[in-house]
Parts: sequence; C-alpha cells; structure tokens
Amino acid sequence: MNITAAYTDYYQLTMAQVYFGTKPNGRAVFDYYFRSNPFNSGYSIFAGLEDVLNILETLEFTASDISYLKQHGFENDFLEYLKDFRFRGSIFSSKEGDVVFPNRPILQVEANIIEAQIVETLLLNMLNFQTLIATKASRIRRSAKDGILLDMGLRRAHATGGYYASRAAAIGGFDSTSNVKAAEDYNIPSSGTMAHSFIQSYEDELQAFRDFAKMRPVNCVLLIDTYNTLRSGLPNAITVAKEMESNGTQLMGVRLDSGDLAYLSKKTRKLLDDANLDYVKIVVSNQLDEYVIKSLKDQGAPIDIFGVGTNLVTGKPDAALDGVYKLSEYNGDPRIKLSENIIKVSLPSKKQVYRMLDSTGMFYGADAVALFNEAEVAQMEHPFDATKSLNLSSFKQEPLLEKVMEDGKRTTPSRSVSEIADYSKSRLAQLPDEYKRFQNPHIYKIGLSTALKQERDTLVQKHKF
Amino acid sequence: MNITAAYTDYYQLTMAQVYFGTKPNGRAVFDYYFRSNPFNSGYSIFAGLEDVLNILETLEFTASDISYLKQHGFENDFLEYLKDFRFRGSIFSSKEGDVVFPNRPILQVEANIIEAQIVETLLLNMLNFQTLIATKASRIRRSAKDGILLDMGLRRAHATGGYYASRAAAIGGFDSTSNVKAAEDYNIPSSGTMAHSFIQSYEDELQAFRDFAKMRPVNCVLLIDTYNTLRSGLPNAITVAKEMESNGTQLMGVRLDSGDLAYLSKKTRKLLDDANLDYVKIVVSNQLDEYVIKSLKDQGAPIDIFGVGTNLVTGKPDAALDGVYKLSEYNGDPRIKLSENIIKVSLPSKKQVYRMLDSTGMFYGADAVALFNEAEVAQMEHPFDATKSLNLSSFKQEPLLEKVMEDGKRTTPSRSVSEIADYSKSRLAQLPDEYKRFQNPHIYKIGLSTALKQERDTLVQKHKF
Repeated sequence: MNITAAYTDYYQLTMAQVYFGTKPNGRAVFDYYFRSNPFNSGYSIFAGLEDVLNILETLEFTASDISYLKQHGFENDFLEYLKDFRFRGSIFSSKEGDVVFPNRPILQVEANIIEAQIVETLLLNMLNFQTLIATKASRIRRSAKDGILLDMGLRRAHATGGYYASRAAAIGGFDSTSNVKAAEDYNIPSSGTMAHSFIQSYEDELQAFRDFAKMRPVNCVLLIDTYNTLRSGLPNAITVAKEMESNGTQLMGVRLDSGDLAYLSKKTRKLLDDANLDYVKIVVSNQLDEYVIKSLKDQGAPIDIFGVGTNLVTGKPDAALDGVYKLSEYNGDPRIKLSENIIKVSLPSKKQVYRMLDSTGMFYGADAVALFNEAEVAQMEHPFDATKSLNLSSFKQEPLLEKVMEDGKRTTPSRSVSEIADYSKSRLAQLPDEYKRFQNPHIYKIGLSTALKQERDTLVQKHKF
Repeated sequence: MNITAAYTDYYQLTMAQVYFGTKPNGRAVFDYYFRSNPFNSGYSIFAGLEDVLNILETLEFTASDISYLKQHGFENDFLEYLKDFRFRGSIFSSKEGDVVFPNRPILQVEANIIEAQIVETLLLNMLNFQTLIATKASRIRRSAKDGILLDMGLRRAHATGGYYASRAAAIGGFDSTSNVKAAEDYNIPSSGTMAHSFIQSYEDELQAFRDFAKMRPVNCVLLIDTYNTLRSGLPNAITVAKEMESNGTQLMGVRLDSGDLAYLSKKTRKLLDDANLDYVKIVVSNQLDEYVIKSLKDQGAPIDIFGVGTNLVTGKPDAALDGVYKLSEYNGDPRIKLSENIIKVSLPSKKQVYRMLDSTGMFYGADAVALFNEAEVAQMEHPFDATKSLNLSSFKQEPLLEKVMEDGKRTTPSRSVSEIADYSKSRLAQLPDEYKRFQNPHIYKIGLSTALKQERDTLVQKHKF
C-alpha cells in the first residue's frame, strides 16, 4: 500500500465537497495536540514530523483514487479539483524529538480548509503513533540506564506500522533494530542474533553454535535456552567461545530468552567469568518493558543488552496517543470547540508556545501558550483556575513552534533519525528528574497568556447555553 | 514503504547466511500458532492470509536491499543467492475467517529452511495483527447485536497498520470503514459523517447543517454535540430534517460524540419521535468497545449505529497476539523446542488438525492435532495430563488445514473480504454460545492424536536434562 491522498477518513472528503461547493477559499488554522501523556509519563517525545513533511510534499490522489470516488457519488467538478489537489499550506511545528506536554499545540497547520481537512487523518495517524512509541522508548531507555537497547518487535507490531515503530524507537533512545527495512531506509543500526529454530535444525546444539561462530564470527551472540540454559546452552557456548579464541575471533555474547532472567543472568555471568570470558556480554529478551528492566537493574542483574519487542512497538498498555486536530481559526476569526468538560475546550487562534528556561538552561517546568503575535509572555494564567497565575519575567523564553513548511514546501532542512535522537537526548537532559520518574511524576505546567485566555473566555461566553 | 524481502528481522538473514554456507538444501516445516486467545476471548478469528499469499508470490530483495546488505558484511555468494530469492515453498493453512484456538497449528510452511526463515517475520507480522483485530471486531459485533458498526480508527491506528486493521475489522463483522484507502483497495463499504471543525468553520450551527444537507443529502448524518447537544445541535438538526422533507430528501441520522450516550440517545430518540422523525437514526461514537456497547444495549439505549475507533484498531487492551513460528520438522525428522513450562513445548512434525462436529453440524468443542498422514483421529489425548483422553468415534471430523500454496504459487482462488467475512459469520454460528460469552468463556479443547503425543514425548525424553 502506498500512501496517497486517499489515506484519509471518508468524512474529510464529504466535508471537502461541501466546502468546495459553498466556500472554496476558506483559510483555516488547525492545532495538533494531545490531552494526556501516555503511560502516566511526566512528558512525551514528539516524533513523526519528518515522515509527515516528506509525504505532504508529494501527496496526491491517484487515477484509481479518483475513479473510486467517482463511483461513490462525488461530483465531477469536485473530482476535477481533487485531480489537481496538492497540500499548499504552511506548517508550524515543535522540533521532532523535543520533549512535549499535553494541552498545548505541538503543531499547527495553516491552509485552505479543504487541504487542511484532507491531510488531518494522515497527520494524526503518523504523529500519534510515532510520539507514542518514542515516548515508550524514552522510558525504557531511562530504566535501562547505559544498557544497550535493541528493538526486536516487528513480528508483533501492527502490520506495517512496525516500520514506523522502529524509527520512533530510535528517536526515543534505542541503539539498534532487528527491522531490516527500517534500518535500511532510516539509517538505523541493525542487529540480531539467532532463533531457536536455528539450533533445532541441528542434531546437536554444540554443532549449531560452531557453524554459526564459524560463518558469523563478528558480533556473534549465541542463544542458550533452547534445551537447558545452564546445563546445555551455556557450557556449549563456553566451549565455542574458547574455540573462537584459538581461531583469533571472539564471542560477543550469549542470549537468555526465557526463565528467571535475574537468576539466570547472575549464574551465567559467574560461569562466564570463571571461564575467563569476562568480555562475553549477556543479552536478555522476553516480554521486557520499562518496569521489568527496572526490576532487573534493581536486583543487580549483570545484563549488558536488552532486546525489547511487543511492549515497545505496540505501546502497551496504552496502545494509542489521544492526539486531536482542532480548528482554531477560520478566515482570520478565532474558533473554539466547547465541551461539558472544561479541560476539553479547545484554544482559539493561531498561537506560539514559549518554554521557560532557568538561569542554568534547564527547563523550569512551564510552557506558556500565547497568541501568535505576542512576542513574549509577561504573566501566565492557569487555564481554568482564575485565582492562579505565574510571573514569567525572570525566565528566558524559548519559542517552540517554527515554520517548517510554506506553500506546501519544506522550509527547513531534513534531519536524520540519529540527529533527531541526539536532539531528543539533549532536550531530555534539560528536563529535571522529577518529571521523568515513573511514579507520580511532577506535573509540568501549561498556562495561557492573558490575551489568549481573554479571547477564549469571550468565545466561551458567546457560544454557551 | 513497499514490502520487500528485507521486511524481516536481521537475524533471519544472519541465520540464512549460515544455512547457505553449511546446509543450503535443508527442508523445514514451521508451525504458526498462538498460545492464548486475546481479550480473554473463548475463540479467535484467523485473518491476514490473503495478504500474506499475495505478498509471498512476488516477494524479492530489491537492488537497494542487496546494496544495503553488502554494506553490512554479508558475503558476495550469499548476496548473489538473495538476488534470485523467491519463496518457493508450500503453505497449508486454516481458511481465513475461520474460528481458531490456541496451541494448534493455524498455518504450516514447508520450504527450504532459508526461505522459510526469511518470510517468518512477514507472516507473524501480518497474521498476528489481523487475527487480533478480527477477533476484537467479532467481539464488538457480538455486543452490538444487529446494530450497524463503523470502523473509524485510522487516526489512532499504528501508522499504516491502520490499513490492515480496517480489512480485519470487516472480516470480524464491521459493516463499513472511514478508511478510504482500505475501502478502495479491499472493496469494503465506506462511510463517514462530519467533524466538529465543519460546524466550527461556520458562524452558526444551523447554517453548517443546511449547507451539508444541501450538498450531501444522501446518507446525511449531522453531528449535534459541538456546542450543546439537546439545546442547540438537536433542535437545529430537527429544523434541517423538516427542510429536507420539504425538498424531497431525508436526513439519515444524527451523531452523538460526547457526554452520557445512554441518557442523550434516549432524549434524542424521544425528541426526534415527537417531531415525527422516527426514521432518523442515532449514531454514537467516543471510546467505544465491546463492554461499553454491551452496557449501552443493557440500558436500552436506542442506538442504531456505533462508530468504533481506537479500541478496535489498536486491539486494546492486549495490543498484540502472541503468535509464534516454530520449527517442527527438518529434513524429514521431527523437531521440538523444550521449555521449563510444559505448555510452551512445541509439537513436532508436519500435522493436520481435525475439528469435531456433532450431528447437527455444530462444533462439538474439540480440535484434534494429528500427524499429517493420519486420516482421522480415533482418540484424542490431553496434551499434558496422561489420565485424560476423549473417544472421537461418534464425531464427524473436518480437516482444517488445506494446501493454499505450492512451489510459491497459490493453489486456491483468492477470496474477497466480503466472502471471508461471510464465511467467518457462518463458522461463528457453528460455535456454541458458551464459547462466545465475555465472562469466563467455556474452554475449547485441543488434544493430540495418540501417535503425535508419543512422538512428542519421545523427543522430550531425548532432549531433557
């Protein structure tokens, strides 16, 4: 499946047809944001932007898309319009890899409302998922400390979504992936060891290890739990490691994929060290996530490399980021969506977001959302509690949204996955530890400029019943 | 991203290189099966087969894949082999859409071990995910009874995995999808209504409804919760419905996307009926799943159409099916994978699975796994409890695995999504209700033929420590 402009929700097209027939030149601003961090995290890592921009630059309806829509009752003049459809709007966005928070714009689209509506589904689909996985990866990175992290989730991923999961995992801090296609296209380091089937295909385990070590001596990792880890797999691996030494090669590691990983890794380390194989690394896998890895670390398990699959690439247990795309301006007029729940009332108008930095360059713990033309924010208002505000005059204020696309063309250079991962790491280093802990993380404040709050409240009054 | 043979795990290629260098003509049988039904379900719906077969028929490494692998140290003779790589094996499979159960082969691959290993990741990736989603969809279909079900999950799906989610949802019993691309390619009915942004782009809600009804009178559904459902959205929708009547058109429905859906749907039905609009349907959405829909049904909520998104396409809360791919035979010899947990010991040899049917054609509640050449199974043994067995002489026995590919070519006609969905529905009708309930469903029995059990036990003895 190739992504074309038909990679959208049907209602985007029914709405587009009505706009086309009644007000084809409407200019809209839409905000992309999410309402809560996944995994009860204190922050999220924004990911997916490069893919979105690359796709938008060439997005169009194919002849087959047009023919399909013709069969479904869309009118000829609208179909003629769709034949020439291109996204010609502007995009203002947080940098990919940045540390981001709920209830403030991460990205804004400013475009003809038809174009903005048709691309909504693609944006949400790509940004929600990659941000979810980059955030999960970042949490696993934190629990693994300086351990090496390998993504090996493709077989349990959501079909081709696994391709983007591997990219997002690298942004969130994973060192390599088993996913060859993603590694190739995104220039992510690739790695892998062997499966149980490899050993099962031999009459005996030792011969399987010997053949593998002979043919693939570089980065050779032997899987030692096919029959019995401590009585068969490990002794055979030690035999082969010694044979490799006499051939001038070196066993890189052994992998444990079942059983009590804390117990087995300690036993394995001891037996390897007793055999003077202290350089042989221990790799573990089997339903790992940030909590299991933290527990292994807390138990002092001597593990060097963690292979993480299902829980990483599916973003368990949340499985989705609740990102939305809300109209905030139409033909220059501010717009809001009301809700019985005040937290779900959207913010009107095109906006900028300022991050407060303290004198050491660390994040203070507050982003202020302002109208687009406000230069800086003197005072930040609590979004709902009129008794709370914060004076911002002592902070350095960093604008977070930058123009990355204009007239449908990218205005900033593309960035590689490794550049984005490095940037993300540096940004995370600016976030104090209290926001990164797993249990009840400190809540990062999001406030509104006085002018934005006034504008929102005026609109609420206008529309309320 | 196009799926090529590099859509695999890196270790498949390192193992393949070793096989190529040491025993290039090995013939393997691999079993695809899963260990537990997702969602605590009493059954699963097998999906994804057609996609797998279509991809396998043309799967190859591109020049760019080969060049990537060359840079990563794979040897020239192996790369020459990969240039000509095709999947030339055979596949024996359950019918797509069939009701299936854990711990018995769903599909078997018989091929050169290099080919079988390289395609493993693709098979697991596609079959695990689509089976997960078809099963979720089937559960939602059960709770919705004869309500119409619309998939609207693409924006929260795992990137392009959402394309396959929409296909699997249709197999599991959904009536239509918002996903235009999937609808187009798989010939699934498409549908959609309008977003809040459409109404927000107007100065007033009534004018928004009027424009939409004028331009898109067929299957017109108005979204009534943008400002206030009962005081604004519904009265305006009723006004437009009456105007449509006088224009000779008809409002199809109104949609509720927030608030207490049981309360609001009852109020809405009453007000529509009082206005003589009993034909106007009620559509609801907002974080629905099988349990929320069951609760709405239990409360007597007069809802006609359910739009389901995130929980459907992400397969929440499980987010993955634990399907595996285990070597069961190599060069004609049976193979097993041991485990400390006896349930995880794999079954050796190429196999057939027989389903027991009672005299009325209903499933009795037992599948017997046998060696491939056993015609029928006289007695079924419990896999682990030597004191338990079941005499099968009174049942009609239906073989479940059929050859669907030979020498890399399909041997059965392709089936459309709607054919598969119809088949699935008919199979589910053969499964007694006790297996379909949400709370503690009856456990479907999986047993082994006496010969298979003996073969497994002999191998366990041979390899045990």
